[in-house]
Amino acid sequence: MANNDTIVALATATGSGAIALIRLSGQQAVTIVNKVFNGKDLSRQPSHTIHFGVIRDGEAVLDEVLVSLFNAPRSYTGEHVVEISTHNSRYIIERIIQLLVKEGARMAQPGEFTLRAFLNGRMDLSQAEAVADLIASNSAASHQMAMQQMRGGFSNVLKRLREQLIHFASLVELELDFSEEDVEFANRGQLKALVLEIERTVRKLIASFEQGNVLKNGVPVVIAGKPNVGKSTLLNTLLNEDRAIVSDIAGTTRDTIEDEISINGVLFRFIDTAGIRDTDDVIEAKGVERTREKMRQARLIIYLADPLQDDAATIGGQIDEIAGLNIPYVVVVNKTDLLDEEHRQALHAIQPLFISAKNNVGVEGLKAELLQKVNLHRLDAEDVLVTNARHVEALQRTGEALLRVLHGIDGAVTSDFLAMDIRQALHHLGEITGSVSTDDLLDNIFSKFCIGK
Amino acid sequence: MANNDTIVALATATGSGAIALIRLSGQQAVTIVNKVFNGKDLSRQPSHTIHFGVIRDGEAVLDEVLVSLFNAPRSYTGEHVVEISTHNSRYIIERIIQLLVKEGARMAQPGEFTLRAFLNGRMDLSQAEAVADLIASNSAASHQMAMQQMRGGFSNVLKRLREQLIHFASLVELELDFSEEDVEFANRGQLKALVLEIERTVRKLIASFEQGNVLKNGVPVVIAGKPNVGKSTLLNTLLNEDRAIVSDIAGTTRDTIEDEISINGVLFRFIDTAGIRDTDDVIEAKGVERTREKMRQARLIIYLADPLQDDAATIGGQIDEIAGLNIPYVVVVNKTDLLDEEHRQALHAIQPLFISAKNNVGVEGLKAELLQKVNLHRLDAEDVLVTNARHVEALQRTGEALLRVLHGIDGAVTSDFLAMDIRQALHHLGEITGSVSTDDLLDNIFSKFCIGK
Repeated sequence: MANNDTIVALATATGSGAIALIRLSGQQAVTIVNKVFNGKDLSRQPSHTIHFGVIRDGEAVLDEVLVSLFNAPRSYTGEHVVEISTHNSRYIIERIIQLLVKEGARMAQPGEFTLRAFLNGRMDLSQAEAVADLIASNSAASHQMAMQQMRGGFSNVLKRLREQLIHFASLVELELDFSEEDVEFANRGQLKALVLEIERTVRKLIASFEQGNVLKNGVPVVIAGKPNVGKSTLLNTLLNEDRAIVSDIAGTTRDTIEDEISINGVLFRFIDTAGIRDTDDVIEAKGVERTREKMRQARLIIYLADPLQDDAATIGGQIDEIAGLNIPYVVVVNKTDLLDEEHRQALHAIQPLFISAKNNVGVEGLKAELLQKVNLHRLDAEDVLVTNARHVEALQRTGEALLRVLHGIDGAVTSDFLAMDIRQALHHLGEITGSVSTDDLLDNIFSKFCIGK
Repeated sequence: MANNDTIVALATATGSGAIALIRLSGQQAVTIVNKVFNGKDLSRQPSHTIHFGVIRDGEAVLDEVLVSLFNAPRSYTGEHVVEISTHNSRYIIERIIQLLVKEGARMAQPGEFTLRAFLNGRMDLSQAEAVADLIASNSAASHQMAMQQMRGGFSNVLKRLREQLIHFASLVELELDFSEEDVEFANRGQLKALVLEIERTVRKLIASFEQGNVLKNGVPVVIAGKPNVGKSTLLNTLLNEDRAIVSDIAGTTRDTIEDEISINGVLFRFIDTAGIRDTDDVIEAKGVERTREKMRQARLIIYLADPLQDDAATIGGQIDEIAGLNIPYVVVVNKTDLLDEEHRQALHAIQPLFISAKNNVGVEGLKAELLQKVNLHRLDAEDVLVTNARHVEALQRTGEALLRVLHGIDGAVTSDFLAMDIRQALHHLGEITGSVSTDDLLDNIFSKFCIGK
């Protein structure tokens, strides 16, 4: 990807809508648009201004447009950026992009605008990755984490770690310079305390990935139970309630997401257990292994029982099977509308939640229980959670290097060995922010972006 | 639709993309956005400027955004307009729109921004209608017509007509003022010439609808022929060629349009004749009526013959049937790659086009022939074609009123009767531009728009 080309792409979604945005970035962005724009001379206009005019291809008027100017470096990419706001017609968009390509722009690769923002120092790599996460965010929690990361929350934590490590390194390397003289500038006890502190922060970040990942991708939940206990009805009741809230906002047609609901801003993702739902594998010994495999992906199990099929003792036996899986579970008795008081009393022994999925009774209580069971810390605006597998991996390597430093200190190895491991730790931290990066890594990250971003 | 509300809507398409635009219009647009925007004080910024900042809902940062300001009357609607450019996440869009509604905006109705542009005199009704046509345009011709109409080409023609009519009316009404004295200011011969000229223009506009409608909605074409002559193969060859061109532009994924191709900027729309394609109705007497019904929608028939099934004489007989339908047709002989020279010579009697649909041979020639057969005038940038059924209807009523005026002049009716018919003609012209309109009419027109336009 040559960085001195001027790139162009449609930046808005395709489909039915009023406006489309075509975006250019690069040294020639203003010059190229100026060639086809009838209106003011764009090269003489200040940054952050908007100009009405007409895009012409020879004699043909392609569209009446608004052109927004962002002069380098005050733009998303840090380069000259021009945004053309057109009528959202596929025909017009194609013609204008073709025209701009004819005049010297080149079609952008996926993520290339954000890649340039990174290469031009407008954001570090973890911030760039957060842009894609932000666009994909579909719950309050995933949104908050992506926003925090994009705005540099994670980068700041890494920066502090880096500074502490560099401070430590400078002490050790000073010794190195005087190694002939066997001087020991740094008090080894103090050094160790410092490395321990850094290592603890790294470990805490790594540990945060479990919650971060769950919040980003949704809490995986399995609804288990014998056939005809009402599993599908319960799922539909949960999903439809969520849909009703969403569809209040006209014009933001929801993509069909079959099996996700957001409870108090936390996404719950239902794992397809079609096989389990339709048989009674869960309570038959021979089916347990297959179930176990499905369940292993879950972080939470809703065990749904039908009191008209089974009595309290039988349900109790089923629960014992579930408990053996070592995954948090909620026991729910369905069809509560069909129970008389005596029957209900008998079931209290197994301490279930009573619901009627069909009549939407008790479902709010179930939701509260789900939230409590996954036991997520309430997120504060300041909380930094790692949500990216690449970052965890780099943090793990950082941690390993730090452990080698600690062993080194304990084993009284020479300063040059310590310095080597510290440099390793710094290297792996740098991979996260992109101060250390390879073309392959960048390709891999940005190719997952959409075109136009 | 109360016109003093401030309205808000997503203006870009939903789906995968980098940027989304949320648009507000109304007196409170700037004030409302200012309440939730962290950045410069938007109320103190000049029109047509862009400002970076953050949208906050209490403590939560919803997004980093760019806000574009358009102060009344220098905006699309003629009111204060604010556009918020956000990351294209459904979650973010919903949260921001909800927030803006909480702060006093109201969700816009379909087409309400353009309705306001009309009500505030930024465009007349025919121009507003052209905005929707422009967005829907999918060929060079439909685009050019919509653009011409949106930019006021049609309005100018109507304006001239209107001025001529008013001039005529003033002459007649002057007589009316002096009717007691039996004065005749206007030379009746000159009056008649003027009305004839106006009526001729109206008639010409009405006549242009046939071509305008065809160019806007596509030329309806039927591919007819006996089973297994290669009709589907031909259709696929035509469609695939067109697709290949379109898909050159990455990022503008084409909606699946199964049966449309654009030849030299003119759209050809293939009518589903599944029933015809799969039987030999076309050449059997008993099927002719059913076929005729299907064919009645067509403006052009491609009659495809298989020289391995039928000889020249038989094909000639089939063509006679087609000719009886009184619709322009093209005779095409397929599978030309399987013909020897002698066989080919024998077929020359029926003057067909020779193609091989499978090998894409001769298809370009067929396209040229299709274009020639539909006999469309080449559109100049200045050409005004009527493309809207509502406009044709109003023009027809205008024409009828003008004919009554002509009869009145010939029958020497009194000036007050002439004046009444002229007012009728003016009224119907006014319906097109919206200088005469009802709530029902406006509802009907704008409800077909998308939300956000």
